[in-house]
Amino acid sequence: MRAAYHEELESISNGLVDMANLVGSAMGRATGALLDTDLQLADSVIATEDQVDELQRDLENRAIAVLARQQPVATDLRVVVTSLRMSADLERCGVLAQHVATLARRRHPEHAVPKDLRRTILEMGQLAQRLMAQAAEVLITHDVDAARQLERDDDRMDELHRMIFHHLMDDRWHHGVETTVNVTLAGRYYERFADHAVSIARRVVYLVTGEHADEVATNSRVTT
Amino acid sequence: MRAAYHEELESISNGLVDMANLVGSAMGRATGALLDTDLQLADSVIATEDQVDELQRDLENRAIAVLARQQPVATDLRVVVTSLRMSADLERCGVLAQHVATLARRRHPEHAVPKDLRRTILEMGQLAQRLMAQAAEVLITHDVDAARQLERDDDRMDELHRMIFHHLMDDRWHHGVETTVNVTLAGRYYERFADHAVSIARRVVYLVTGEHADEVATNSRVTT
Repeated sequence: MRAAYHEELESISNGLVDMANLVGSAMGRATGALLDTDLQLADSVIATEDQVDELQRDLENRAIAVLARQQPVATDLRVVVTSLRMSADLERCGVLAQHVATLARRRHPEHAVPKDLRRTILEMGQLAQRLMAQAAEVLITHDVDAARQLERDDDRMDELHRMIFHHLMDDRWHHGVETTVNVTLAGRYYERFADHAVSIARRVVYLVTGEHADEVATNSRVTT
Repeated sequence: MRAAYHEELESISNGLVDMANLVGSAMGRATGALLDTDLQLADSVIATEDQVDELQRDLENRAIAVLARQQPVATDLRVVVTSLRMSADLERCGVLAQHVATLARRRHPEHAVPKDLRRTILEMGQLAQRLMAQAAEVLITHDVDAARQLERDDDRMDELHRMIFHHLMDDRWHHGVETTVNVTLAGRYYERFADHAVSIARRVVYLVTGEHADEVATNSRVTT
């Protein structure tokens, strides 16, 4: 009975890691699609959504089954409940990757991202993917230091996000309204994606240490 | 024991309704702040965040206590787990209201919303508040028809959101980049807020009927 129980808990944790890997690589591909206006790549990201959704439901059902059958208490209970919150974060990340892919589609055959912002968007895309890989690692290792490092690394995302806005507000910005809109949305998608990775890391820290990081602070730090 | 149990379940449900009312009126005030560039009103919305956060944690702790003490199964278990997901939706709505209020602050003393979009933003703000009031009602009544009506009413939000983009892309749009950015973000905040209300309604439908509405469809319907 106990062995089965721990297997079930572990399968929930594995499900989260699978989701994190899936949405991380979806965001990587979405960034490629956006920068190269690659429709096939964009479509492959959009197709990922069903997989993310399936993993999410599967995980939710397994969590509910564990709660019903094993009736965990104390830490185990917190782990299961927290997994449900994390899976919601990851599901949302899948949708954000899809949104980035859709931006690539919409301007085709034109580029959605102008040359002068290409490097910034590339860095945001790579950082998003890296933060999600760190989150997946933290889910496996429960390493509090790594979780806190992830949070510090996210500061760069906020900086990049601010840089985009400064760039847009610069007098030399000469692109049309559609590009302005697309860049605004892309910046927001990356920043939100990274925020979810931070949120996962913070939940792990809480499970391990019992210290509640101030989630509101993350959610509202960058409001643009 | 049973009476205490049902009281606990009810107090979780009441907590959700309180959160819905709080974030609904926060979004109403945020819209007022945005349209009238009213800083005091904007600050009052930003101050709401702590309350939302407190309600959310309180609700999460109560849900975990019920799971630990009462070990509910079947429908009751689904109700508690679903409440956790709903409280995450509502917490996010509080952040979105705060984002709208921050947009009002940022352009002060100028207007963040140009005259030609005032009516559209007003309608989005009112609709957002109304959808959240409907969601609160559905949480109380578990009325499936009302939940489905909410979903249909949200179509108007998607329409308004599209109208904003058409307006921005129109050759007659003559406002600066900052206004374009702000309007783009405002549109997205309202649309996301409404999506969370729809998501709550769908979860109620699922609890009552066992029919899973396709959540992915909601999340990705409007990608702009």
